[in-house]
Parts: sequence; C-alpha cells; structure tokens
Amino acid sequence: MKAFDKPHKRYNPLTDEWVLVSPHRTKRPWQGKTEEVEETRRPTHDPSCYLCAGNERMGGQHNPMYESTFVFQNDFAALLEGNEQMETSKGLLRMQEETGLCKVICFSPDHSLTMPEMTIESLTEVVKVWKREFEALEQISYIRNVQIFENKGSIMGCSNPHPHGQIWAQSSVPNEIARKTRTQQAYYVKHKRSLLEDYLEQELEDGSRIICRNEHFVGLIPFWAVWPYETMIIPARHFQAITDMTIEEEVAFADILSKITIRYDNLFKCSFPYSAGMQQRPTDGQSHEGWHFHYSFYPPLLRSATVKKFMVGYEMFANPQRDITAEQAAETLRSLSEKHYKNG
Amino acid sequence: MKAFDKPHKRYNPLTDEWVLVSPHRTKRPWQGKTEEVEETRRPTHDPSCYLCAGNERMGGQHNPMYESTFVFQNDFAALLEGNEQMETSKGLLRMQEETGLCKVICFSPDHSLTMPEMTIESLTEVVKVWKREFEALEQISYIRNVQIFENKGSIMGCSNPHPHGQIWAQSSVPNEIARKTRTQQAYYVKHKRSLLEDYLEQELEDGSRIICRNEHFVGLIPFWAVWPYETMIIPARHFQAITDMTIEEEVAFADILSKITIRYDNLFKCSFPYSAGMQQRPTDGQSHEGWHFHYSFYPPLLRSATVKKFMVGYEMFANPQRDITAEQAAETLRSLSEKHYKNG
Ligand SMILES: O=P(O)(O)O[C@H]1O[C@H](CO)[C@@H](O)[C@H](O)[C@H]1O
Ligand SMILES: O=P(O)(O)O[C@H]1O[C@H](CO)[C@@H](O)[C@H](O)[C@H]1O
Repeated sequence: MKAFDKPHKRYNPLTDEWVLVSPHRTKRPWQGKTEEVEETRRPTHDPSCYLCAGNERMGGQHNPMYESTFVFQNDFAALLEGNEQMETSKGLLRMQEETGLCKVICFSPDHSLTMPEMTIESLTEVVKVWKREFEALEQISYIRNVQIFENKGSIMGCSNPHPHGQIWAQSSVPNEIARKTRTQQAYYVKHKRSLLEDYLEQELEDGSRIICRNEHFVGLIPFWAVWPYETMIIPARHFQAITDMTIEEEVAFADILSKITIRYDNLFKCSFPYSAGMQQRPTDGQSHEGWHFHYSFYPPLLRSATVKKFMVGYEMFANPQRDITAEQAAETLRSLSEKHYKNG
Repeated sequence: MKAFDKPHKRYNPLTDEWVLVSPHRTKRPWQGKTEEVEETRRPTHDPSCYLCAGNERMGGQHNPMYESTFVFQNDFAALLEGNEQMETSKGLLRMQEETGLCKVICFSPDHSLTMPEMTIESLTEVVKVWKREFEALEQISYIRNVQIFENKGSIMGCSNPHPHGQIWAQSSVPNEIARKTRTQQAYYVKHKRSLLEDYLEQELEDGSRIICRNEHFVGLIPFWAVWPYETMIIPARHFQAITDMTIEEEVAFADILSKITIRYDNLFKCSFPYSAGMQQRPTDGQSHEGWHFHYSFYPPLLRSATVKKFMVGYEMFANPQRDITAEQAAETLRSLSEKHYKNG
C-alpha cells in the first residue's frame, strides 16, 4: 500500500466515519504545551485516599476492608435513579429525562498499583466483577445500556490514582453505542457474519497492525485508529457481551489487558495515561446478533511522556486527524517487552 | 421546563446526536488536575516568535513587515497539494488519498494582542481576509471544503500565543461538515426554511440562552451545547458561506466576535482558551441551500481559569456529557460586562 506515507483518510466501518492521516507531520517541531510526568512511588495504602480500604469516602460512608475488588455507587453520580421519562420538547428544542446510576470499581486495595502492575490473577478478578456488574445492571428493567470504562492518569481527568474504573448505566442508548449497533447489525444482516470477525481475519492475514495475542483475544491497532497509540482488543469468537465469556476467556482477557498495558508503560517509561472502554451490546432486551464485543484504549500521548496529541480546532469542527500511521504505532508497540520496565 | 435540574439529554439537530446533561453534578468537589494560567504581559514584538513581522519562520522564510493581517502556507502542513485520488482499499480496510493545503492567518502584527483585545476595525480586517481566502481556495477545483478555525491557548494545543488562526482546505468533505450538510439539507427540503432560521426564531422568543446580539448576528449558548461555555454565532439572515456577507455584515460579525470573546476573558479574568470554528457549506460545487453559516466557540474551562472539563472515558466511548445547563452558562455570560477587564 504505497499511499501510506502521503496524507490520506481511512474509513471506520464501526462508526461510519473517516480519520485523516498525515504521516509526514511527525517532523513538525513541537514548541507547545508539555505535560507533567507523575512518577512518584505511591504507598500501598494512603490514609487520605477515599478509595483505599477502611477509609472514609467523600459522601461520608466508610469503605470495607476489601481484599480484592470493591464496588460502590458514585457519591457524585452524573445519572440519578428513577423511572420517569418526562418529555418536555418544543419544536427544535428536544429533550428527554435520563435516569440511571454510576458505580466505581476499585481494581485492588493496593493504592500503589495500576493495571500493568497487577497479576493476571487479580486482573481476572476485575474481569469477573465487570461481568457480575453487567449481569446485575441488565436485570434493572429501565437500564438500556451499561458503559464500563477507565480513565487513567490526571491528564485524562482522573482525580485519584488508586486503581479504579467506572460504570455508567442508563435508560437510553448513548450516541456511540447506537452508531455501532446500526453498523454492526447492517453488516450482520448482509453477510451473516460479524463485521469484526471478518475484520479480524483480514488483520491476521496482513499482520502489520497486530501487537499481541493469546488463544482467545487479539490486541491490535485498528486500521482506522484516531489516537496515536490507540489499541483494540477483539475476541476471536463472536459474542455480544462480557456475560458471554467462558471462564477460560475471562483469564485470557485478563492476560491480554496485562500484555497491552505493560507495553504502554514501557513505551515512554512512565505510567501511561488513557481512557479505556468496553464496547458491547445495549441491554435493551433486543438480541443484537451483529454486536461483537471489543475493548479499546484511547491514550493521548504522542511523542513522549510529556507531549500529547491535541484533538482541537480542525478535529472538533471537521475531522479527527493523526500524525503517525497505525502501522508505525503497531511496529513500535510490538517491539516492546512484555515485562514491565519497573521489574527489570 | 421543569426537568432542567434533573439529568436529561438534549438533541442536536445539526449533528443528529444527543448530549447528556447532569445539572446537579457541579456540586462534585474537584481534586483532579489544575491547569496553569498564562498571565504574563507579552511584548508587542517578540524576536523569537515565528509569526511576528520581519521574523524568520521555522521553514527558513522571512515574514514581511505586515501591518494588518498576514497569510502564509503552513510550513508543517497536515495536507499536501496534488490531485491524485489513489484508492488502495481492500475489503474492510478502506482508504483514499487526501490532498489539500494548510494556511496560517496572523490576525495582527501586535504579538501582545488576542481577539478580545483587538478593535472592531482590525477584527473587520480579519473577517475580510477570511472571506478573501475562502473565495480564492474555492477556485481550486479539487478543493471541496475550506475549514477556518482558531486554537487559542496552550491548553488547546496552540504552540504560539501570537494572535492567529488556521485554514485547512482539502479534497473531500470532513465528517462533521458532511453530517451538518445532510441534516440541514433534509430540513430545508422538508420546511423550505433553514434549520437555524427556525431555531433562531425559537431562541429569540425564549430568550434564556441569548448572550448578546447586534443588527445582523445573535450570540447564544445552543440548547444542545456540549462544552461548559460553548457559544454559537448565528446570522439573522440565511446565507451559506462567508462570501455571502455584505460589507455591513462583515463589520457586525467583527462586532459580535468582540462581544463574545470579551465576555469570555471577563468570565474567569484570564485569557480564555478555546477552539473556534467557522461552519459553512462545502466548496464542492453543489448549491447547499440548506446550509446556514454559523461560528462556534468550544472552550474547555469549567469552574475557573485552572479547572477544565475533561471529555474522556464516558464521553469518548458513549456520549458527550456536561455539568452545567446551557441556561445557567448563558445567564453567567450575559451578566458580564462588554468592556474587557484589563481596560477598566
Ligand atoms: O497546527 P498546530 O497549531 O501546530 O497544531 C494544533 O492544531 C491542529 C489542528 O487542530 C491539531 O491537529 C494539533 O494537534 C494541534 O496541536
Ligand atoms: O467521574 P470522574 O472520574 O470524577 O470524572 C472524570 O470522568 C468522567 C466520565 O468520563 C467525566 O465526565 C469527567 O469530566 C472526568 O473528570
């Protein structure tokens, strides 16, 4: 594919959108903002952390002396429970009440850890708690979508370094999930196979964007990646939600999460910031055969631990844009060790 | 509209997307990242600035001794000229070459200024140069879209405080413009009026989201705003592109740009960062009667000069989310003086 070193655009069939790629632009000298590196060694227990075991939370409650994971309802939730669906639209001013709930999941009682520093065993516990939560939230009749995600690093708006993620469960299907539901269902109806099943086949044949894999999952940079080192974890088997995972797949998923995040930390030898999100079928009672579970990392860093990619003017008003190709980024990540730099 | 203080979602008819609004969430204490405030008084000419008159640029050329505005081709452009349209797609890996050019527009030779500190006269010069550039770029047959924007402040990825904006002109229509073209054309075909004409009528009647206005333009917080203090400038008259502006409208546009940006600086008594973008019809030769010119500001600050809104995990994987309502934000901006805090 010769055009790879010239500006071009690539199509994302999951979102039905394009990304502009400018491979030559990495030569641009950077004179702008640099970020701080957070490299202090943290204690395993911080008395002032509201997520550590036994401590008091902002809402006044006390955390139990948990030993593995711990889940609670967010004291400052963006969504509130209820089941009204008040419609108060008028002409072009259309609005609708939204109900739901927000939860926080502590991945470990150890305040000093992050995902890449956790054992596969403890990561498997995280996978199991995600599964349990999805299962329980899906039971609530008015909940139509369960969004599981993690913001890591203060640059990603995360206000507490204690290893944790979030779940926002709500009464309607959000934009991004609605879009991916449409595209995947249309593909499935037409081809009787899932879009990501066919995509994964092409990627495995090509090889240039694959980073790592195990028996059940593949970690790669999607052809249409937007963020510089964006990655995606795709299960080899076509299933719709985390609740479909076998016990073996749970462990394999923990393993691939570890493999990817360790490479991330090794890239710039820092605690690599990102937002990560689980992408799965809505919980609206429909079958969604087209949905193919995947998990994505959107990390902002571009050139070093202190220089990030800004998604601003052109990107906000016109189109996402990236400076290095998915293939360059994949080659870099692939070449890195699967042993964390702090351990060796 | 009673539901305004409960979580709800609002619909953006221009992008066909929803935003989640959580008005009660401003009570959340903020323990996360704070930004630096850039409050140094800058000299009117900085010998090390590559945008100041007479200075050397990064590419080696010298800027002329310009006295008003100055336009040049970006030395590190994301788009390159040419006219090939090489298609190298294969199955689900779809890509296409993209050609175009990127320009930089210096708003003033005075290094110390920003838009809110410029006179209406010099802002009118900026409007005129935007118009001239749009006109000239539209002449290039392979250019199908001309995106005019400004990134202001290092927090918005801007690497030089010299007052300037950019233009990216390219061979295809970007995502956001394609979307707005579809929605506005569909509305126009159905109603024989532009979407924003009808919207503006509703807003003027309601009044709660209006910030300021003059004879030809209205500045408001759109009902479906995503960023905390996002604003939109809508012309009262329905036209498609900046080239349709009369001489009177040019001055009135400069005036409303000044009014909005002065209020922004007054809000947190700082040089208010934002990305601003001109939204107008593509230059692909079609008539686009539905398109109604507008200009938007997306500013990241939420609570103060140092605390911004992070569009991260949930927002990236699911749906944009905001903490204060458009009405609250409009009330705050409306109550501020139209005289810059530094001048009084
Ligand atoms: O072109 P600049 O100012 O160097 O760069 C800035 O604006 C561009 C257009 O929005 C972005 O792609 C860059 O990430 C940002 O740093
Ligand atoms: O919920 P937190 O961690 O306080 O907040 C963080 O994640 C949320 C969900 O992505 C965002 O809405 C906030 O802007 C961000 O600061």
